Amino acid sequence: MPLLIHDARVLSMPIGREPARGAAMRELGAIDRGWVLVGDDGLVHAVGAGTPPSAPIRIDAGGRVLMPALIDAHTHACWSGDRWSEWARKRAGEPYLSILNSGGGIMSSVRSVRGSTREDLARTTALRLQRMARLGTGTCEVKSGYGLSTEAELRMLDAIDDAAAACVAQIGTVATCLAGHAIDPGCPDFIARTLRETLPAIAAARPGTTMDLYIEQGAWMGDDAVRFVATSLALGCPVRAHVDQFTRSGLLADLIGMGVRSVDHLEASSASDLATVAHSGAFAVALPATGFALDMRFMDARRLLDEGGTLVIASNANPGSAPGLGLPFAMQLAARFMGLTTAEILRATITNAAHLLGVAAHVGSIEPGRRADLMLLHDTNEDALVHGLPSGAPGLVLHAGRAVNPDEPGFEATP
Amino acid sequence: MPLLIHDARVLSMPIGREPARGAAMRELGAIDRGWVLVGDDGLVHAVGAGTPPSAPIRIDAGGRVLMPALIDAHTHACWSGDRWSEWARKRAGEPYLSILNSGGGIMSSVRSVRGSTREDLARTTALRLQRMARLGTGTCEVKSGYGLSTEAELRMLDAIDDAAAACVAQIGTVATCLAGHAIDPGCPDFIARTLRETLPAIAAARPGTTMDLYIEQGAWMGDDAVRFVATSLALGCPVRAHVDQFTRSGLLADLIGMGVRSVDHLEASSASDLATVAHSGAFAVALPATGFALDMRFMDARRLLDEGGTLVIASNANPGSAPGLGLPFAMQLAARFMGLTTAEILRATITNAAHLLGVAAHVGSIEPGRRADLMLLHDTNEDALVHGLPSGAPGLVLHAGRAVNPDEPGFEATP
Repeated sequence: MPLLIHDARVLSMPIGREPARGAAMRELGAIDRGWVLVGDDGLVHAVGAGTPPSAPIRIDAGGRVLMPALIDAHTHACWSGDRWSEWARKRAGEPYLSILNSGGGIMSSVRSVRGSTREDLARTTALRLQRMARLGTGTCEVKSGYGLSTEAELRMLDAIDDAAAACVAQIGTVATCLAGHAIDPGCPDFIARTLRETLPAIAAARPGTTMDLYIEQGAWMGDDAVRFVATSLALGCPVRAHVDQFTRSGLLADLIGMGVRSVDHLEASSASDLATVAHSGAFAVALPATGFALDMRFMDARRLLDEGGTLVIASNANPGSAPGLGLPFAMQLAARFMGLTTAEILRATITNAAHLLGVAAHVGSIEPGRRADLMLLHDTNEDALVHGLPSGAPGLVLHAGRAVNPDEPGFEATP
Repeated sequence: MPLLIHDARVLSMPIGREPARGAAMRELGAIDRGWVLVGDDGLVHAVGAGTPPSAPIRIDAGGRVLMPALIDAHTHACWSGDRWSEWARKRAGEPYLSILNSGGGIMSSVRSVRGSTREDLARTTALRLQRMARLGTGTCEVKSGYGLSTEAELRMLDAIDDAAAACVAQIGTVATCLAGHAIDPGCPDFIARTLRETLPAIAAARPGTTMDLYIEQGAWMGDDAVRFVATSLALGCPVRAHVDQFTRSGLLADLIGMGVRSVDHLEASSASDLATVAHSGAFAVALPATGFALDMRFMDARRLLDEGGTLVIASNANPGSAPGLGLPFAMQLAARFMGLTTAEILRATITNAAHLLGVAAHVGSIEPGRRADLMLLHDTNEDALVHGLPSGAPGLVLHAGRAVNPDEPGFEATP
């Protein structure tokens, strides 16, 4: 039955054909005493201010904020096993290389994923997606990357599809192939094999899949990284790249010149690197949860925005450097440590994330015809979402008009 | 019907007559492949390892951690209005005094509470308590302190009682009278009136209520603070004190000599201050969420523990300096910034918090006869709770044996 949410502060966040940058980052299309009518088809049918139409099911927002659900454009939410014991060692001062050399780190997740069935991977991934949905994420990107072999990468991508299907009523999912996550030390010709065999096999099995790689010392570097990008593009696959997390690569201009879709991390980028990114068509994806977990270094997103860049903020959910599921926490870190305003953070985590994931025609705003992926916050001021500390679900979360967490206290529908 | 949770890593966390300190902070009484039987009366009936007894309702923990619910020993969860817009100003660099002078800060909450009915206060407080329960808090202290007049303080305490009654199926509540929160600039003889009228009136209306005060420049200072403590004790009321948050008071030894039950904050305390606290019978309550929100200063809890002190970690939930509801986040900050281990953090937030609140005879451990306030984590390693990033509910939360968040994904009971 149609659902009306009324007496809300509606952040309609109009979304255009282009990502938000410049002045568009500071505007949320707020409608006080607004209402939104959601149809049986799970789409937004109408948005207005003042006296609302009648509807069989109504939620009185009581002035609380109604906004589009969040969009998490960078996660590694498909993994198995866990690496909790490594954190105690890290906090006690053990260097990452020592943990890696004793069988920990990313290769620990790779071993675990390689030993997992598609069904096991799908089950644990679905559980994470469900938990993310309850925290307000309406659409979530999920990368492979703990398989590293052709077979295991394809198994991960299949598992992500299975998890997406299992959670389709709660969250939308977009898969990315992170075939270039690490260098497998057990495979002497790993780089050549990836370029010659893995990328073509994945492009054949899943045409147009977005490819991703991690450019860092000890991972993909220099000419190898450039070859990964060129090979992927030649196969008709868009490319995203983890760049400049710990070490300035010096590759940003080359990557952008080749047409990579996003450059993610950028904690170690120089001011002129950030200007290069800002003046390009590439998305810059900030991952502040990793800065919090590791070393309190963050992308200088303030500079990127002031240069007119296209910012996205994402959770980077993964077992190694951001062991959490909450996109709201990344937003809170952006407010706390990156000098961004509420509007900028919302535009980065909703509007621009939707564009990066290619879902901007369907979600990311409250406008007629769009899927009703919504959050009705506990609070009457959207500042609560970014200046508040982690408090569980930010409110009632709706996916295609249906409550993901109908038991959240404080929200009653009246028939 | 009796409930059995089996195949769990049970952290029984045995609790004695005295708080945990020294070696007791490092021991959690873990039972692998353990089980817990909860009776119809909501109490733990039996705990064991290996083959469990039969029971009409069973939850297969699948190796996940089953532990006592958290106990939040320092919150200001009874307030009305909000101060979100102040955070944007703070982050933009506006000094707190400027915000205070323009009508913001604590007096903003005081005005709002004074203008609220008991019913309104109870309703908003109950909603917060319900949300805290879903994040794992089984027992929660709530302070008054935004009333400051006798009448408004009593109204807050009544509202806390009402909220507690409304949430009794989800969370236990302990009220504290923070009559010494701030100095009301609109009341010229505020200090004298508080000592002469407010404290006696509250002690008469609610004998034995724990009193609390905020010792800081611009709030209660020096001899006035000492008189507040002495007056409260003479009225038969235990005393807790916020001390050394921004400014070293030099009063710690005096307060401890008088027998205050806890000293909370201690970010600005010296090493010898912390030794004085550690060697006393007072609880030291760390509030790291405030350090995160304000200035990244934290109590040197590592030193306190190494000196043998009695540590508690609490959320300090309040609209001004820790605008969140999650005790898990405070625990994560303790792991991230205070150099504490998982066991120390769990003992501080459960065992010692139970002792501080005077509920250690009923909750705080998984032992026969205790109320079944439990958390079944999503993870098989308790490190997840402190080294993970905020991810919503840490698992299935049970209060007196009944699920507070039965819809949390990943937990199915089999009849």
